[in-house]
Amino acid sequence: MEIPRDDNFNIDIAKVKAAITPKTKIIFVTNPNNPTGNLTPQKDIVTLLDTGVPVVVDEAYYEFSRQTIMPLIGKYENLIVLRTFSKWAGLAGLRVGYGVFPEAIADFILRIKIPYNVNVAAQVAVGESLRDVDYLLASVQKLIAERERLAAQLQKISWLRVYPTQSNFIFCRVQNINAKDLHKQLQMKGILVRYFDQPRIQDCIRFSVGKPEHTDALIKTLREIGG
Amino acid sequence: MEIPRDDNFNIDIAKVKAAITPKTKIIFVTNPNNPTGNLTPQKDIVTLLDTGVPVVVDEAYYEFSRQTIMPLIGKYENLIVLRTFSKWAGLAGLRVGYGVFPEAIADFILRIKIPYNVNVAAQVAVGESLRDVDYLLASVQKLIAERERLAAQLQKISWLRVYPTQSNFIFCRVQNINAKDLHKQLQMKGILVRYFDQPRIQDCIRFSVGKPEHTDALIKTLREIGG
Repeated sequence: MEIPRDDNFNIDIAKVKAAITPKTKIIFVTNPNNPTGNLTPQKDIVTLLDTGVPVVVDEAYYEFSRQTIMPLIGKYENLIVLRTFSKWAGLAGLRVGYGVFPEAIADFILRIKIPYNVNVAAQVAVGESLRDVDYLLASVQKLIAERERLAAQLQKISWLRVYPTQSNFIFCRVQNINAKDLHKQLQMKGILVRYFDQPRIQDCIRFSVGKPEHTDALIKTLREIGG
Repeated sequence: MEIPRDDNFNIDIAKVKAAITPKTKIIFVTNPNNPTGNLTPQKDIVTLLDTGVPVVVDEAYYEFSRQTIMPLIGKYENLIVLRTFSKWAGLAGLRVGYGVFPEAIADFILRIKIPYNVNVAAQVAVGESLRDVDYLLASVQKLIAERERLAAQLQKISWLRVYPTQSNFIFCRVQNINAKDLHKQLQMKGILVRYFDQPRIQDCIRFSVGKPEHTDALIKTLREIGG
């Protein structure tokens, strides 16, 4: 089942706990969440860990949120943390990430993993990224600053409700115009944003943060479309 | 279960048919076979197809054997053919291949496939390989010629039994020395060959075909080790 979240997309921990049965095999938490961008507080994840059910925390956007459950690896035998080079290092196209597992779980993962390993292009790119962490994390800092500037601009638009984000995107509820139409209109002007035709978020749009000129072009176009 | 094969590693079609039960979900045929290099005749694959059980034919080495079951795709609703760019195009490190499926099966595959697609480095390399098919297949032809030369040389070594091959490697049974020791001795001389510590082939070695100078170095070293 999908993890229960409230109107602000915060995980409803009581509901999660109530939904656990002897058949529950895993709890999967995306933190920060995608596409909403919000963080689940560490104490809530600890509550989930205390149930004993294996908890996978996907920290794909960790470098943008700088909050991590990683220090609890080793303390909890049921905690698994996933990370990726797709976002902060820009290697999405090369499909490379990593997981941190308790030893017993790592042993099982190795038994069922497909025989092929990460492709060689990704291996080279990861090596070079790790040599250049300072440069890459400085770019992440610039993107975080730009995220805050974009969020402030979006908040000035009366027909958008901007959700708090700790990721590299900003999630908004579109209040007067139809979100699907907005998505199309932006597309016609060459601005690609993410629209999810799914329950609960059909009136929402996700903006990925770019460079300052991208922010400016987006805000200008949004003003032209919706005022 | 492993597919039953006779002493020459030919598939024992009668045994395969006898092993089929209502629980049999798939028959997987590697053709040419790896690590032995032998081909299963088309009529035997047709016999398997006529059972109605889904048959997957892995033609990873097709470009070296030039025998394919592909024309029967569309005639048999239970035939799947797998190919790869790993061998003939030399892209093993980029992890890219393809499958040819009847429409109904393709639809199921798409439903369960992981959301990520082939990595971008592989996409670019495949595009360039397809532009250069003539050059690449000419290299395959050279390798086939070298395979025949290497096989003839190996046949002259009295303590090796050379199996017929339609692949880019040659499989041999080692008859006087211990195959595992031979593998180690070759390794110490900088020649890496494949040894499989598995039932039925523990006294065998697989040689990958290389350039003429590799053939010469291998034969010279084998002579030094075993006479």
